[in-house]
Amino acid sequence: MSRNAASVLPARGLPFPGLLSLVLLSLVLLAPSPPSAATDPDPLPSWRAGEVKAAILAFVAAVSDSGGPDFVPASERIAVLDNDGTSWCERPDYVPTLFQADLLRGLVAEGRIDGDAMPYRAWIADDQEALRDFGWRESYEALTRALVGIDIEEYREAALAYLERRRHERFDRPYTELYYAPMLELIDLLEARDFQVWIVTGAEQAFVQSYSEQVLGIPPARVIGSWVTPVYENDDGEVRLTRGDVQVPNGYEHKPENIAVRIGRRPIFAAGNSNNDEPMCRYALTGKHRSLAIWIHHDDPDREYEYGRRGSRIEELCEENPAAYEVSMRRDWARVFR
Amino acid sequence: MSRNAASVLPARGLPFPGLLSLVLLSLVLLAPSPPSAATDPDPLPSWRAGEVKAAILAFVAAVSDSGGPDFVPASERIAVLDNDGTSWCERPDYVPTLFQADLLRGLVAEGRIDGDAMPYRAWIADDQEALRDFGWRESYEALTRALVGIDIEEYREAALAYLERRRHERFDRPYTELYYAPMLELIDLLEARDFQVWIVTGAEQAFVQSYSEQVLGIPPARVIGSWVTPVYENDDGEVRLTRGDVQVPNGYEHKPENIAVRIGRRPIFAAGNSNNDEPMCRYALTGKHRSLAIWIHHDDPDREYEYGRRGSRIEELCEENPAAYEVSMRRDWARVFR
Repeated sequence: MSRNAASVLPARGLPFPGLLSLVLLSLVLLAPSPPSAATDPDPLPSWRAGEVKAAILAFVAAVSDSGGPDFVPASERIAVLDNDGTSWCERPDYVPTLFQADLLRGLVAEGRIDGDAMPYRAWIADDQEALRDFGWRESYEALTRALVGIDIEEYREAALAYLERRRHERFDRPYTELYYAPMLELIDLLEARDFQVWIVTGAEQAFVQSYSEQVLGIPPARVIGSWVTPVYENDDGEVRLTRGDVQVPNGYEHKPENIAVRIGRRPIFAAGNSNNDEPMCRYALTGKHRSLAIWIHHDDPDREYEYGRRGSRIEELCEENPAAYEVSMRRDWARVFR
Repeated sequence: MSRNAASVLPARGLPFPGLLSLVLLSLVLLAPSPPSAATDPDPLPSWRAGEVKAAILAFVAAVSDSGGPDFVPASERIAVLDNDGTSWCERPDYVPTLFQADLLRGLVAEGRIDGDAMPYRAWIADDQEALRDFGWRESYEALTRALVGIDIEEYREAALAYLERRRHERFDRPYTELYYAPMLELIDLLEARDFQVWIVTGAEQAFVQSYSEQVLGIPPARVIGSWVTPVYENDDGEVRLTRGDVQVPNGYEHKPENIAVRIGRRPIFAAGNSNNDEPMCRYALTGKHRSLAIWIHHDDPDREYEYGRRGSRIEELCEENPAAYEVSMRRDWARVFR
């Protein structure tokens, strides 16, 4: 349902303005009723029956039941989903960085960056050891600096083009096809119940914004990531914005902080897969409304990967708070990808 | 249309599911037809006929005409409106600051701030001369520092309560009733044509977010202002966010920069009233789509106020760019307030 970016125009006037329509309408009304709620198809077919699926369905039903005790007005039905490892596959490579290294290769080819200098040489060669020796922080900062001055609209177009080109090694599919089927169904279910679904990621915001509407039906305005503040340039009357060198982080406690600034409301649903998401999940769980948080646990090496620490803070949250659930990929997901 | 914060649930099933309804519907259908598009009531009754009103109507019709050459997909119909002096009355007092001074009085009464120390003494007494002598910048910074640690949810509730209490001296009405009738009609028209309308203000974001949905039908997520980055606090498992002391500005070139980060798309419509809005208007006007910008010129001392500089950069923009229009309050607005 949410895969389509087009919005629906408000209905104006009566749906059947004529006598012919009246006859047609009579036929419709005399025909058998459409399926009732009781026989509606399962909105989460990729989720296996169990405690987690039941908890999600019960939560969504309760907060959107206007006669019930847990009703939450639609304007406050905010859902926040981490991206990497929660909504799509993040292994073995970190695509936002692959893309930036690819951009860097282009700048070197154009002679705008010295490709023999470190850490650029290591970025271009994808030499992880050399990057580690140079220092991760310093390596990433140098990469951000190398991209200063690129027009932000061109950057997004390049990101989208990169994603159309690049395939995942093991699954041999574009990365954008590696969004998890159960999570896409969950987004659809939440949107059908008038939730506003936001992506809240530690990854670079502009990268995710480049494809979010096309791939997820989520407009760029509902993507919060680590962002580079752009710079206003007035070129003889024409405005363009270019990449600057100030990066605003969006991990750990910065996730709830940025949610408060950007959404202006406390979420009632959160999904994450690591300690990076624990403050955001805790924020959603301790508001005044009924809430739910899920932790995607990667325990399925056959269909995806196996990682994610036992004893992590996000696992502790699931043990401590009855509204926080561990999602075992192996146990809870009937299907991983579409 | 947009004054109501409640969202409309998607229609499920037929609107009149029964034979009795069929009879009622027949009566409706046999009655005279509802007005057609050609006789639709004027969507901008508070705007006087003239060049500006015609330009607005033509622009809105053109970008939403799916068969026309200037069609813009709904997802890219972004409108940005300045707040103070563009959407509501900003004279003689600057309400966001009045509110903060009022909060300060409360902190002094509670003994949490020394009300005899400068510049707090001047803020409490509303002594503009003393504030100027102390230094405007220093005075505002001290005010921001005094409010550090306040829970952000309590801050918004206090702002809303202040607005319900405080009345405009000259017009003897709550400030929230001093949104301009022509601009409220314009917001309604834009939303009816599937624009996403954003408030982009130099004022403090949290203040405007406190009432935007209730008063304007614009959710807090679509308010961009100068913001204070909140601070995450985990109080024994419960999360609250409090006001910090880092302020991110949203004036002049920062408006387009923050629009790019927060909306992720270039607007096609912009409204402003001062040089503060000129970069934002220019940004909207120099994208790839048909666009429109309006400059609200305060030339109506009888019904509102007279200010706004001739020869300003925003006036120059109106002279230079045929898609930028000066709105004369006196000439173009049949009514100023509701």
